Amino acid sequence: MATIDDAIGVFDSGIGGLTVVKKIAEKMPNENIIYFGDTARVPYGTKSNSTVIEYSLQDAGFLVQKNVKLIVVACNTASSVALPALREKFDVPVIGMIFPGAALASKQSGTGKIGVIGTNATVNNKAYSNELLKIDSRFDIIEKACPLFVPLAEEGWVDHRATKLIAKEYLQELKDYGIDTLILGCTHYPLLTNVIKKAVGDGVKMIDSGTAAAITVEYYLINEGLRNYRETPGRYEYFVSDLPEKFKSVAERFLGKEIDSLKKVDIEYLLGLI
Amino acid sequence: MATIDDAIGVFDSGIGGLTVVKKIAEKMPNENIIYFGDTARVPYGTKSNSTVIEYSLQDAGFLVQKNVKLIVVACNTASSVALPALREKFDVPVIGMIFPGAALASKQSGTGKIGVIGTNATVNNKAYSNELLKIDSRFDIIEKACPLFVPLAEEGWVDHRATKLIAKEYLQELKDYGIDTLILGCTHYPLLTNVIKKAVGDGVKMIDSGTAAAITVEYYLINEGLRNYRETPGRYEYFVSDLPEKFKSVAERFLGKEIDSLKKVDIEYLLGLI
Repeated sequence: MATIDDAIGVFDSGIGGLTVVKKIAEKMPNENIIYFGDTARVPYGTKSNSTVIEYSLQDAGFLVQKNVKLIVVACNTASSVALPALREKFDVPVIGMIFPGAALASKQSGTGKIGVIGTNATVNNKAYSNELLKIDSRFDIIEKACPLFVPLAEEGWVDHRATKLIAKEYLQELKDYGIDTLILGCTHYPLLTNVIKKAVGDGVKMIDSGTAAAITVEYYLINEGLRNYRETPGRYEYFVSDLPEKFKSVAERFLGKEIDSLKKVDIEYLLGLI
Repeated sequence: MATIDDAIGVFDSGIGGLTVVKKIAEKMPNENIIYFGDTARVPYGTKSNSTVIEYSLQDAGFLVQKNVKLIVVACNTASSVALPALREKFDVPVIGMIFPGAALASKQSGTGKIGVIGTNATVNNKAYSNELLKIDSRFDIIEKACPLFVPLAEEGWVDHRATKLIAKEYLQELKDYGIDTLILGCTHYPLLTNVIKKAVGDGVKMIDSGTAAAITVEYYLINEGLRNYRETPGRYEYFVSDLPEKFKSVAERFLGKEIDSLKKVDIEYLLGLI
């Protein structure tokens, strides 16, 4: 039986999921969080569905072993293909990025013209289109893969002239289409919000996965009587499958605070879990 | 005992190694080649040395099972860290990218001012500097990581304005340094030769890994009596750990001919090999 003191488990292919952790921590600062970043096999967005499903089962299996009360798939690519397999395999409830993002976008859009950007895998799977059309079949949706945004964000070029040029090239089509809402369907993209906003037009509402997921996570926890309201701040434990030092420096810049619990997990260990 | 009809084994983290296959095939069209691309775990350039060594041992183990007469590590990152481990583990001779590139650069450079560009891992390991200084300790070397070049090449933006801007940003320092020779220390970079040439100055000599490796491979085979001089064209077999369809389309564009033998290999199978 899950208890309120159990942690929220979060996994991602690497560091991008920290934008989701940040939003969850802001909204629910008293919740414990255990994060796993699969930095030995990052990225997932360029891999096949079957490979992403296999890796996701291993990542979630690691969190289940840590007795988390809930699993957040803080990776749009994994969310777009692995949710059914994760829900079949594990009893712990699983929240992905797609439904929360689609639900929030559906509330914010006035005209129903919604843009979606993400990795090749997320866009090719039409994950957001399918979810949005379930909510309202009249939505008019345009999706676009932006594969260079992740490396640009990781390089730290969030305001570089080349980034602006690339954003313009990727997003002109969405601007011309006249969208009023844009789903940032990759956890790295919030880092590029300013450049993206400029390329697509200032009036367009931005939906980021972290904000959307935090709303859904809190709603779920309250509903299940699992929301932790104690007054001490939550504990954060981080695990990665490779390069803990690099993760630490990026994560601290990212979250704006020090990380004191970070361990490396061997891939072989993960493989033994499923 | 190896025979002349045995294939040359080539592995890479993904598709980049095909630039090396192309040069080997041009120089020795009658040799059989078996290629393995680890597309389920690509890229290697952002991962730790220990992870790259582990993956490389598995990749080479696969080729050894196929009875290759020689292994070419067609990935600069893997070459920069995994050669000692590979040579200790396997009896088959192993040729990496670093020594051939350094040797060719040392012959072409007049002034001894040599630039090296590559992934973060290759540059952080100072693989080329160490090798060049062994050849001549008077060489004056400048190294620079260019992490955005691989995603730009994979996106096919080989002549895009953003690529030119990024190349200028990365390479201005090398131009100012006055290099007369530039080692393209990543198998993807030959795809960006035109842009790189423009950014670094037309007079600078370009050393690509494929050309350099093909020279070393042929030299080795002749020396060992293993060079295949039969008149029929060589057979090519390709194996990847993920997304064979994507590999096929990119590879065919890349090599300028059809690929008729391509199979997917399971990662679990690789793990069982070492």
